[in-house]
This record gives sequence, structure tokens and C-alpha cells, in this order.
Amino acid sequence: MDDVNGGNSVVTACFIIIGDEILSGRTQDKNLSYLATWLNEIGIQLREARVVADDPDGIATAVNECRAKYDYVFTSGGIGPTHDDITSDSIAKAFGVPIELNEEAHALLRSHYAEGDLNESRLRMARIPVGALLVENPVSKAPGYQIENVFVLAGIPVIMQTMLESLRHRLVGGSPVRSRTIGAELAEGKLAKSLGALQEQYPRVSMGSYPFYRSSRFGVSVVLRSMDEDALEAACQDLIGIMRDLGADPWIGEQDPR
Amino acid sequence: MDDVNGGNSVVTACFIIIGDEILSGRTQDKNLSYLATWLNEIGIQLREARVVADDPDGIATAVNECRAKYDYVFTSGGIGPTHDDITSDSIAKAFGVPIELNEEAHALLRSHYAEGDLNESRLRMARIPVGALLVENPVSKAPGYQIENVFVLAGIPVIMQTMLESLRHRLVGGSPVRSRTIGAELAEGKLAKSLGALQEQYPRVSMGSYPFYRSSRFGVSVVLRSMDEDALEAACQDLIGIMRDLGADPWIGEQDPR
Repeated sequence: MDDVNGGNSVVTACFIIIGDEILSGRTQDKNLSYLATWLNEIGIQLREARVVADDPDGIATAVNECRAKYDYVFTSGGIGPTHDDITSDSIAKAFGVPIELNEEAHALLRSHYAEGDLNESRLRMARIPVGALLVENPVSKAPGYQIENVFVLAGIPVIMQTMLESLRHRLVGGSPVRSRTIGAELAEGKLAKSLGALQEQYPRVSMGSYPFYRSSRFGVSVVLRSMDEDALEAACQDLIGIMRDLGADPWIGEQDPR
Repeated sequence: MDDVNGGNSVVTACFIIIGDEILSGRTQDKNLSYLATWLNEIGIQLREARVVADDPDGIATAVNECRAKYDYVFTSGGIGPTHDDITSDSIAKAFGVPIELNEEAHALLRSHYAEGDLNESRLRMARIPVGALLVENPVSKAPGYQIENVFVLAGIPVIMQTMLESLRHRLVGGSPVRSRTIGAELAEGKLAKSLGALQEQYPRVSMGSYPFYRSSRFGVSVVLRSMDEDALEAACQDLIGIMRDLGADPWIGEQDPR
């Protein structure tokens, strides 16, 4: 965890989405934006995401590259009972540890399934890399787990979301990044020069410019983000002034409330 | 381009999504599933996707890693007129070439903007790495471009989609992957063992199992994908037989049509 930005601590994360179904276009990922927002609220910045195929070497490589580079890594997908659920084997490979039937996970599954229904395939969900700490799954019991700084979670959004709540207390966040959005009916290209100058004036506020076309109106949303609330507030006021000088009537937030 | 799968040619691609707005959770990416489906139709398999921040070194590293690994790389985002549009500088850095005002791109912008509206910021959109070939943008003129096997496209979905049509003729696809989906009201864990055996029986058909919960019904969709249509058809028929033996009444397609 770096200590930059004038004493504010920056904690970073990476998200690895595992699954052929995302790369084939069959399934639209819904977990990335949820995780990004959720992490941000506890002061952790998502810095990269990768979508990787159901391939053990590819998964292991991505996990090893990312766990060395970021404070936390989260994975989603591939921990179910079928032959294409290869995440846990790939994680064991990445860490160079064996994978075994985990007694605690086994007990959880036994409590969930009727006797006779806990077949060989479902038992696969209790195979966990040695040394991992389980993450509770209140929805369907089969657990996720943590191994060092890597959290291995389910891909089904509702299950991933409850797993995040289960593991929240294990994360140490930094200073949260505050965000404000200022919008205006103004072409991005007209605002660009002044916005670039404003960015130079406030190096600790990151400014993103996003053009839009909504209800037959062209405009721009500028998102300002910073760990320094005073600088953020001052930059917002300056930006509103710049937009007014360009003849626009800016609003605060993503949508014009009027 | 490998020549595996019994003489079928496999052409691969990677998608690099550039933008802090995706990693902050502000914007939900819509381009990945579109590109995946579009590429698949012309026989190109999307093998990996990455979401990277607005950071020149991070972008350059991702581009260089991926262009060495895949036949084609597509990027989206960061080619607009504002200070946070740093994709083109990062691409020039990745390739070790200068970036200059491109005369053809300049002419396109001149034809689009009224005199006096083509300001310094908008001219940024005509700064293109030397050696690149432009990709037409019928929507708003500011072009994308191709440099070696990397295609640099806009992030706004409608513009990215028209750019793909503009560059389609430059891509050489392999054998398209055919796909069939078989669904049933059947717990994934009950099907898992037979499905694993079926996968072993048909190594050239990739089988993905996706549980669902819809309209108060639990079930599973199995997606079978192959470049070999005969094997695909045979595997589908076998799977339908397996599901029936397990007491289910399977259907073809994502949704039960009944």
C-alpha cells in the first residue's frame, strides 16, 4: 500500500473475470461495475480488470501477474460443480499448493444438500487450495475463499455480492476517493482547452470528460475525483465558472435535474 | 494464426478497454459483448479482454503484451479531444514511433467542423502515430486507426460499431465457431458428472454449463461450441438424451420456448 497523495494512503485492486461465456458474448458481465463501486466506498481503487478464458495456464498467469502488482485481487466465476469449473485448480497451480477436500467446506455442503444429493460433482465445490481461508456464501453455501491477497468468488452476481459482504471485514481500505459530476449542454471540444488548464491547476483532482447525446441534446459530463475534499470542491466551483463563461448553464450530477 | 483443430484455422483477438470511467464503476461497458459476437461471426475468437486506467505506461504495456500474443488487438476509448484522451500518445509509445498531425485526418475534421470551430483541442483528434492507417468514422468523422495488428477505436458504442464495419474488410478470419444452447430444468450438480463424461467423449466441442434461476425455476443452460458441425450436432443429440434420462424435458436455445 503506497503512501502517496500527501499522506493519503492508496490501496489498489484488480478484478479477474473468469469465463468463456463473457468472451463469447453470451453473457454480459455485471460484476465489474458493482465491484468497482463497492471497493471505492471502502477506500480501495480498482486499477485493472481482465477477462480470461477457461484455461488453467491463462488463469494462473493472470493471477500471478496481478497479485504481485496490486494490494488485492478478486476473481469471479468457475467455482461450481461442472467440468468447466477450473478456477480452484488454476489458483492452486498459481500458488504452487495442493488442492484438497476442505473439511469445513465439506461440512457446509453436507448441511445444505439432502443426503444422497451431495454427489461427486457437488463435492468438487469443497476442493479448496491448501492454506486458503473460506469466504461464506449465505445464498447457496458452496464457499469462496481467500489465499494471501487473492479472493476467489462466485460469478453469479447475487452470490458474488453476498460473498463481498462476508469478506468485507478482512479488507483494509485507504482514503476513499470522493467524486463529483458536473454536466452541461456544451460540446466537449469547446470545453477541452479550459478543462486541460484546470487539470494542470489541480493535479490532485483527476478530471474525466465524457460526452453524451441524450434526448436529442449533446453535452458533456465531467467527473472530478480526489481524496482531497477541499481541492475537489474548489475545482468544481472553478469548472462551473468556466462552463458559465462558455455560455452554458451547468448542473451538478449525472442528469440535468431540471 | 495457428492451424489446429484438425485443419481449421484459429484466429485470435484481444480487447483492451481504456478508461478510468469503467474502473470507477461510473460507466458499464457495452462494447465487450458486442465485439465478441461480431468477431465470432467472422471467424475470430476473442481470447482475452483487459480494462486499463488512463495511464500511458499501463496502456503501452498492455498493448505490447497483447499484440505479441494475439492475431488482432482492438482498443476502445480515449481518442477524443480532452486532456484525458491519452490513447494515441500511449500507442505511439508502445510502438516507439512519433505522433504527428495526420494530414488525412486533419482534412476529415476540416470537412466536419465549421471554420473557427476546429480549435486546438479538436485538432488533437488528428494526431495519429506515424505509420498508422486510418479507420473511417461515419458518425462524427474523427477517425480511428490501425497500426500493425492493433486497431484503435472510439469508446462510444455507436461509433465503435460503425468503425468495426469500416475496418471489417481488413480482417482475415478463420473457421467460425458454431454454437448451440441446450437448456433444462435440472440442477447443474445433477448433470455435472454425465456432462463431464460427454466433454471427454467430444474433445473438439467445448461445453460450458451455466446455472440459472428464472421465473422461480432453477435450471441449467449448456452452451456447446465447435468448429466441427458434425461433432457439434452429435454432442447436442447425446446431451438431450442424457437430460431426458435424468427426468428433464430439455429445450434448444437460451429460453424455454414453451
